[in-house]
Amino acid sequence: MLRLDFHPAGRHFLQIPGPSPVPDRLLRAMSYPTIDHRGPEFGALGLEVLQGIRKIFKTQHPVVIYPASGTGAWEAALSNTMSPGDRVLMFETGHFASLWKKMADGLGLDTEFLGLPGTEGWRRGVQPQMIEDRLRADTGHRIKAVCVVHNETSTGVTSDIAAVRRAIDAAGHPALLMVDTISGLACADYRHDEWGVDVSISGSQKGLMLPPGISFNAVSPKAIERSQQGGLPRSFWRWSEILESNKTGYWPYTPSTNLLYALREALEMILAEGLDAVFARHQRLAAACRAAVRAWGLEIQCIEPERYSPVLTGVVMPAGVDADAVRQLIYERFDMSLGTGLGKVKGRMFRIGHLGDCNDLTLMATLAGCEMGLKLSGIALAGSGVQAAMDLLQDSSQERRAKAA
Amino acid sequence: MLRLDFHPAGRHFLQIPGPSPVPDRLLRAMSYPTIDHRGPEFGALGLEVLQGIRKIFKTQHPVVIYPASGTGAWEAALSNTMSPGDRVLMFETGHFASLWKKMADGLGLDTEFLGLPGTEGWRRGVQPQMIEDRLRADTGHRIKAVCVVHNETSTGVTSDIAAVRRAIDAAGHPALLMVDTISGLACADYRHDEWGVDVSISGSQKGLMLPPGISFNAVSPKAIERSQQGGLPRSFWRWSEILESNKTGYWPYTPSTNLLYALREALEMILAEGLDAVFARHQRLAAACRAAVRAWGLEIQCIEPERYSPVLTGVVMPAGVDADAVRQLIYERFDMSLGTGLGKVKGRMFRIGHLGDCNDLTLMATLAGCEMGLKLSGIALAGSGVQAAMDLLQDSSQERRAKAA
Amino acid sequence: MLRLDFHPAGRHFLQIPGPSPVPDRLLRAMSYPTIDHRGPEFGALGLEVLQGIRKIFKTQHPVVIYPASGTGAWEAALSNTMSPGDRVLMFETGHFASLWKKMADGLGLDTEFLGLPGTEGWRRGVQPQMIEDRLRADTGHRIKAVCVVHNETSTGVTSDIAAVRRAIDAAGHPALLMVDTISGLACADYRHDEWGVDVSISGSQKGLMLPPGISFNAVSPKAIERSQQGGLPRSFWRWSEILESNKTGYWPYTPSTNLLYALREALEMILAEGLDAVFARHQRLAAACRAAVRAWGLEIQCIEPERYSPVLTGVVMPAGVDADAVRQLIYERFDMSLGTGLGKVKGRMFRIGHLGDCNDLTLMATLAGCEMGLKLSGIALAGSGVQAAMDLLQDSSQERRAKAA
Amino acid sequence: MLRLDFHPAGRHFLQIPGPSPVPDRLLRAMSYPTIDHRGPEFGALGLEVLQGIRKIFKTQHPVVIYPASGTGAWEAALSNTMSPGDRVLMFETGHFASLWKKMADGLGLDTEFLGLPGTEGWRRGVQPQMIEDRLRADTGHRIKAVCVVHNETSTGVTSDIAAVRRAIDAAGHPALLMVDTISGLACADYRHDEWGVDVSISGSQKGLMLPPGISFNAVSPKAIERSQQGGLPRSFWRWSEILESNKTGYWPYTPSTNLLYALREALEMILAEGLDAVFARHQRLAAACRAAVRAWGLEIQCIEPERYSPVLTGVVMPAGVDADAVRQLIYERFDMSLGTGLGKVKGRMFRIGHLGDCNDLTLMATLAGCEMGLKLSGIALAGSGVQAAMDLLQDSSQERRAKAA
Repeated sequence: MLRLDFHPAGRHFLQIPGPSPVPDRLLRAMSYPTIDHRGPEFGALGLEVLQGIRKIFKTQHPVVIYPASGTGAWEAALSNTMSPGDRVLMFETGHFASLWKKMADGLGLDTEFLGLPGTEGWRRGVQPQMIEDRLRADTGHRIKAVCVVHNETSTGVTSDIAAVRRAIDAAGHPALLMVDTISGLACADYRHDEWGVDVSISGSQKGLMLPPGISFNAVSPKAIERSQQGGLPRSFWRWSEILESNKTGYWPYTPSTNLLYALREALEMILAEGLDAVFARHQRLAAACRAAVRAWGLEIQCIEPERYSPVLTGVVMPAGVDADAVRQLIYERFDMSLGTGLGKVKGRMFRIGHLGDCNDLTLMATLAGCEMGLKLSGIALAGSGVQAAMDLLQDSSQERRAKAA
Repeated sequence: MLRLDFHPAGRHFLQIPGPSPVPDRLLRAMSYPTIDHRGPEFGALGLEVLQGIRKIFKTQHPVVIYPASGTGAWEAALSNTMSPGDRVLMFETGHFASLWKKMADGLGLDTEFLGLPGTEGWRRGVQPQMIEDRLRADTGHRIKAVCVVHNETSTGVTSDIAAVRRAIDAAGHPALLMVDTISGLACADYRHDEWGVDVSISGSQKGLMLPPGISFNAVSPKAIERSQQGGLPRSFWRWSEILESNKTGYWPYTPSTNLLYALREALEMILAEGLDAVFARHQRLAAACRAAVRAWGLEIQCIEPERYSPVLTGVVMPAGVDADAVRQLIYERFDMSLGTGLGKVKGRMFRIGHLGDCNDLTLMATLAGCEMGLKLSGIALAGSGVQAAMDLLQDSSQERRAKAA
Repeated sequence: MLRLDFHPAGRHFLQIPGPSPVPDRLLRAMSYPTIDHRGPEFGALGLEVLQGIRKIFKTQHPVVIYPASGTGAWEAALSNTMSPGDRVLMFETGHFASLWKKMADGLGLDTEFLGLPGTEGWRRGVQPQMIEDRLRADTGHRIKAVCVVHNETSTGVTSDIAAVRRAIDAAGHPALLMVDTISGLACADYRHDEWGVDVSISGSQKGLMLPPGISFNAVSPKAIERSQQGGLPRSFWRWSEILESNKTGYWPYTPSTNLLYALREALEMILAEGLDAVFARHQRLAAACRAAVRAWGLEIQCIEPERYSPVLTGVVMPAGVDADAVRQLIYERFDMSLGTGLGKVKGRMFRIGHLGDCNDLTLMATLAGCEMGLKLSGIALAGSGVQAAMDLLQDSSQERRAKAA
Repeated sequence: MLRLDFHPAGRHFLQIPGPSPVPDRLLRAMSYPTIDHRGPEFGALGLEVLQGIRKIFKTQHPVVIYPASGTGAWEAALSNTMSPGDRVLMFETGHFASLWKKMADGLGLDTEFLGLPGTEGWRRGVQPQMIEDRLRADTGHRIKAVCVVHNETSTGVTSDIAAVRRAIDAAGHPALLMVDTISGLACADYRHDEWGVDVSISGSQKGLMLPPGISFNAVSPKAIERSQQGGLPRSFWRWSEILESNKTGYWPYTPSTNLLYALREALEMILAEGLDAVFARHQRLAAACRAAVRAWGLEIQCIEPERYSPVLTGVVMPAGVDADAVRQLIYERFDMSLGTGLGKVKGRMFRIGHLGDCNDLTLMATLAGCEMGLKLSGIALAGSGVQAAMDLLQDSSQERRAKAA
């Protein structure tokens, strides 16, 4: 049978924008023996992760943890708060916003998809003014929710969620605000309570650095109230029983015990480093990555500098170059995985992930692999991206204090 | 923060009927680095587990693997095949049959719950004749599905699924047959195709010996056809896109990569031992466990010998004894977890799991812990269950061939 | 090629008197990536284990940790303190005392082997009076060291080291006292300083619960002084450079980094439980094991009750029974390893290890395996040892406080 | 207490010339439960590693595996073959040659240290002509052994062992040829039998990619014969009993079981890749590393191009620069460990390891860390080493066939 040691000598470089490389420490935590999910230790574990994850979302309210991967958390957000035929205003920022919209359609909701023309919207963030205008026009309050993606994983654009909240408030509209921060959480600043988000959706395999398999709904009191009044037919995703059971650290059905071990460990790592330090680290690596792309003379997919993602960078290929052929070459020659272009930008760009358990030298390896691969693909580069990134990292490097000190 | 090394000296004995003890070999497999779920290695892995799991269900047809725990697979079975208001005939065999019925109600289906009076049905298997009679009376074929539990984890009763199929056929009824074999699969004989099951539901954390977190729907062509014509609003659970994507070994959304590593390893272990050998091992340990219960002078929850479960044994307490107090004492004194009584039998019985990665001496340790705990709880035992179990195991023990030989 | 998953379903029971079962927690610690043995983290690790191990030996003086298994630490003790031709007084307590004596001969020392006639000495501890008498007779102080085994792993006899020290003092003799506590340390009470031991020798794979591979010399100032004046040709074993380098947490040559990770973890586990609690746990399990042997009507190898070992119990076979055939049967039928009879008692006895990461139910499993195996071997047992052990464990069991509480 | 997760975000880069980064696969193998070193599985494991390791040394004769780190194997080679006062001819290639010579002195041998004047010998390989001349002069055959280092880890110089053998033969001298290939084995071509080596010494933590803790003596029939006639006082290192016991896959004393698991896995990895492919991979990375050093305008410690080491590269600092300060800065800013200058070249150079589980991007990360660190240290570089290495790697990169394919 197949062996799991797929790769040749040395570590594979997993530089896709998630699943991100899982720290050994989390892999070790995951290998702790499974315990009785009804026993006393589990309750202690449950309370700890349920409390800790609130700090990551920056919320005082409950966070639901599902034993299911991220797509499930999208469905959970919609099925708990929306009733059949409810109108949902969504904003096209890229492939994942489009997939979420498609899901809402499939669930029988009445979706409205705002966006900029062509692929313009795939290079910019959510446009709060467009949302405000649309909500003002909805005088009958038929729109029940505004759904946006925080960090669009398909493009590398991070939208301004606080501005979306201000737009809703400016329109005086009662719609819920639901935000997909699957790839944003624990990489980019995120404030569930302060930004007035009603449902924040996230997953385990990005900034939290776990393998995929668990996902999250951070829920406001207003969202909970809405869920008690309606919703779609649902059972597995239903908040009410989970929230009740979570009070003592348990779940109404079998949770994903070993991934919760990893979550506990990840929370400890992230909170020990400090969220601000985590965000600064991501910003610094992202800046170095963009410096490289610019030095190569290539375009960054995101064209609004204030919306650059700290999580990933989309690299646009020159006309006539198939981005997936470049990725494939890099994979085969240099044992590195890069993210493919998705949906409307398929073949036009690839994505470099610089999230999670990553450091300066990981990024330099990544950029070196890209630079060699781009050249081998016959692309004429304007200059050395590797050099540009080194210049930036070198100048901004800090002496660290070894933990052992 | 909390440490995950909860237990004092020595291994904790996890003798609940699932999650079952995870073999070290699976824990090691789970710790393999997460890979790109869109890369070539993943496709090879996906094809292998999708093919291998069919052998466990004994089916030539597809098995859907969800990145979600078992309760989700229940919902998936219902939401793919049943439309709002469809009538479902279910059979009360115990707590899990009742929970599934409650889920069907919550999803807006029209459930009908057959069963024996009082707690009588919690001590016996599904009654095929009752199902046949009911289906014969449903001349208008309003009933769209018959849903039964193969191995009722709350009682330790394994129903005769082939007989349920014969009952449906005898009634000439077109209802789908949907079977929960969450705790039965890979412990007790199970034959999806031969028994004409339309949807078989299972989970990872029982006979497959994985941690919880992934679950299964084995689906017949008839079930797939039904899913294409109707179903409840659904997205995450929708078979069609998954089946399409699975053809090349991938999933339409992020799968639970590291649990698939464990699944691959479990399949290799189980198929190398051979399913018949696995079943025989479970039967032998179960027989030894029942011999112990009888020697103690205690009642076995299941009162139909041909329905005894090879997975777990329900031990009924004498009148006036709180089963949970006994469990608690055993937990605190002997570092062993036993299953609690659920629903109608709460406090009246406890459950001994003897499934998965278990052997003769594990069972002897378990029974010794029970025997000491029962005595410390002040229960007068008729004799030594440990002795009775040793007699049985000793007489039936086989010389094994070391793999290294 | 060979796979490492040698065993069939369930855990193998490794009930030999060492290597003892390694706790998962230590195996996880061992899998931490190897670091630079000259870097700052290593120094911190080194200082911690060097300090912690002193608490286990109960010494204020240095403990040398060798990247070599236990036999090496025997040679180290002799080669650092004895010069060619030096006379060493050793005491025959069993196979390991004999092997150490053979080593001393091989190294060119002039050994004298005190002991009781026949195999009598293999059933009793060191006789301090015999040592005192011999030392009094050595008026010229030709004897340079007295070497005894603390816990004789081949027999299950734990000698009284304090009494040996009193014997030496009573004789007013300057010989060094060197003690092999390879299997005694961290199982049975041991006090390097209080008992006036000059060199204590131990290994990793017994009470410390590590895999084999590192070993120890706890050294008194007098021993260090002696090592500076003479010794055998040596380099790897030489204390002086190691002690110098250890001051800052390093070694003069490459240490066994990953086993030091495990040592650190073991020290944390043992010191958190408390040495007295560890000793009491071993004594209780040993008492239960002996109760079983007596109930079977079999003889315990040790015939001095105050010298019973808390680490292992030697079980003497009835005349005409080949102990190794019994062991082999138990291995093949019940997947458990027991210790073979060594040297003079080969075939006459087997050894049950009850040390390290072991608890009540592990012992019950072990005794059940023995009882079934003895019966299958055709040995008529007087009664049920399993029952006797359960009686003892049941009566002495304590409610534990879960760590999670 | 200290935690073992010493490092901040991302993986530490361990780019010292050993211990080399341990592949996860080996770490997982090491975590397999320790087994009875007298049981049947151990015998199978023992035979497999004893047979496999011969292929690495390219010998038909036995290889002794010690449960001790590499320095022990040096002592073993000397103590088994040399008698007190025997004359040994050694050659000064660097720090490790000097340490081995110091050990031989300490063991009471009569050493003679050939070498080039000053530090000249630390930049070149063994000079076969000097050895031939010296042996020709030793008409009385007082010299019993010629001891040389194959790959001098302190300098990055790989000597021509075949030429040394030719020199000995040309002189018609019966001295044994003993070779330290601790860091050369499984990185650089090595042929124990073909080159007529009598004792080859190696360790686990370099090309074999294990953690430190086990070491090797590959022994010729002539060496075995010599060991039977004399030797130093020894026990742990004595070949005879080990060779006898090894015939059935066992050891006379406790082996380092869990490191043997890792060895088995390493052998499978290396032999599956193929030794020639392993050597070519090392050569290619070494060439890229040297290209970088040259582009920086810095000197390579080795000044004989045909002696360049494929294992590590010594980088000489410009006058006035403290190499250790550069290393320290790189460690603190970029979380990478480099090798320090040892002995005569302390502070004058640092060493870059490019051995073992390493690939193109690992090397690029390493060189980027060096380049940034050199610049931050104020060293004026002639050009970009990173660029030079990329040029070389890019041009020589090969499409790999994924194992999963």
